[in-house]
Amino acid sequence: MDTPHIIDTARQVLEIAATIAFALSGVIKAAHKKLDVVGVCVVAFVAAFGGGTLRDLLLDQRPFFWVRQETFVWVILGISLLAIVFLRQRHFALTERAMLWPDMLGLGLFAAVGVDMAAEQGLPALICVMMGVITGVFGGVLRDVMCGEIPQAFRDHQPYAVCAFVGGWVDLLLRSSPVPEMAPMLGCVLVTAGLRAIALWRHWRLPSWRVE
Amino acid sequence: MDTPHIIDTARQVLEIAATIAFALSGVIKAAHKKLDVVGVCVVAFVAAFGGGTLRDLLLDQRPFFWVRQETFVWVILGISLLAIVFLRQRHFALTERAMLWPDMLGLGLFAAVGVDMAAEQGLPALICVMMGVITGVFGGVLRDVMCGEIPQAFRDHQPYAVCAFVGGWVDLLLRSSPVPEMAPMLGCVLVTAGLRAIALWRHWRLPSWRVE
Amino acid sequence: MDTPHIIDTARQVLEIAATIAFALSGVIKAAHKKLDVVGVCVVAFVAAFGGGTLRDLLLDQRPFFWVRQETFVWVILGISLLAIVFLRQRHFALTERAMLWPDMLGLGLFAAVGVDMAAEQGLPALICVMMGVITGVFGGVLRDVMCGEIPQAFRDHQPYAVCAFVGGWVDLLLRSSPVPEMAPMLGCVLVTAGLRAIALWRHWRLPSWRVE
Repeated sequence: MDTPHIIDTARQVLEIAATIAFALSGVIKAAHKKLDVVGVCVVAFVAAFGGGTLRDLLLDQRPFFWVRQETFVWVILGISLLAIVFLRQRHFALTERAMLWPDMLGLGLFAAVGVDMAAEQGLPALICVMMGVITGVFGGVLRDVMCGEIPQAFRDHQPYAVCAFVGGWVDLLLRSSPVPEMAPMLGCVLVTAGLRAIALWRHWRLPSWRVE
Repeated sequence: MDTPHIIDTARQVLEIAATIAFALSGVIKAAHKKLDVVGVCVVAFVAAFGGGTLRDLLLDQRPFFWVRQETFVWVILGISLLAIVFLRQRHFALTERAMLWPDMLGLGLFAAVGVDMAAEQGLPALICVMMGVITGVFGGVLRDVMCGEIPQAFRDHQPYAVCAFVGGWVDLLLRSSPVPEMAPMLGCVLVTAGLRAIALWRHWRLPSWRVE
Repeated sequence: MDTPHIIDTARQVLEIAATIAFALSGVIKAAHKKLDVVGVCVVAFVAAFGGGTLRDLLLDQRPFFWVRQETFVWVILGISLLAIVFLRQRHFALTERAMLWPDMLGLGLFAAVGVDMAAEQGLPALICVMMGVITGVFGGVLRDVMCGEIPQAFRDHQPYAVCAFVGGWVDLLLRSSPVPEMAPMLGCVLVTAGLRAIALWRHWRLPSWRVE
């Protein structure tokens, strides 16, 4: 009875850390674009919840998870306001680097949740993986579109969505194997976050257009 | 029997005026961007109905209000075409200033309708207020995104969404008080539009990033 | 028994050709913007399925057609990857010209499907036509927004959405006439694609803002 409780708490702590990391990425983007306080709050919110909301829209899942867990919305509002008061230009680079870790875990965790929700609806494998990728990546995509930029995930040639894509397939593979209940999601988080960590460490680059 | 009828008619007149004001803001933005007739119609439509449609998507409310009231769509189409024929560059500034009043009322009215629809579904207070703000503000946000701009509501440092935010809380406060049925929505409209009017008059500015 | 079968097969072949043409338009746009492999795949996907998905969201229609026909998603993924390996800068202009024909048919076909789905729900005439236009045009619109551009359909002054608009009304007109079952959709495809062909051939231009 104790172990699942610890796992549950650990998952919740990770989820909160990931959501905050995603929200902070929105705050920093908004600051670079010199948005006002409303812009900061909205972009932080979109970065944190955009991926999950798009997934829920596509899967016709209501209520949205930020409606069920209203506290999250208050937390994002609070972070945005605090950031405006306390964050200084020279802290941004530092914050961005510090966020790489929760962002990494967040990508894996969000992907695992997305795959899980699609698999429960009995959707085809590729669609499940897509839902995982969308959950993990589209918060950042919508954040960038709101700020009038081509999404970073589409143009920085770093493996990001691709890590979630691989992690999603690992998840589905484990689902059809005789493993403990938590194994698929755990596998997805570890593979996604691990690949992302290696990619950052080894400076992996995505294949690009071949110039002639 | 007569008073509610007058109120109903007054509300409808206000609603039509607000929708037209929002549509005209789209027409003017599209003109500045030199869009063609299709672009003008779409941007006008998005400016007028984008906020309400996003709210209905989020609240899973069908049919959309522009589907129920098809006439509105014809009116927007007509306005867009008329604007292309009759509106001249030098009329834009004039039109923009003339629209400040219906836009102000529209923001309040749209916010009140958004809060009302969310409250009827028994959603948490913060979510109800958010739905009010989204209804009032996201028409303009989507209009600007379609035109390749960072939304004005996120960067002009003028209180706009914030007025609807305050108005939304006033609405909810009145809802839990022993007041007449119409009071909450009326309060929301008056507070939102009033704050917006004062903000424009006194040149209020939103708090911004502190430069060091 | 044989004729409907041939028509069905013909329709499927056309649909696949149209979807591929739309996806390729996304690939080429992504290449011009120097996106990475993830960006290419996402923009191709959005260009191919964005219009239909937005229509299904607005009509509350699930599952989405790319969920029902998962093969389509694999095809788009494959095309995007092949394009990155094989497509060279100097092939783009050629590909763009070669795609004008399937794109033309695709616009008509997508418009016909959109009108059909809305009409089956008994929606008002103007809404049905709008759904046809959205299905045909918004894949390209979302593609351009994702790439940080003002949508081409809004600013190139070429009749595109307008062709689908006229085709949609022809569809509805035929629906209320004593014609064979397939006639309305066929009429919509022919009128839309035909108008688009003539518009390209005669260099028709949309009415624009009158400069003073």
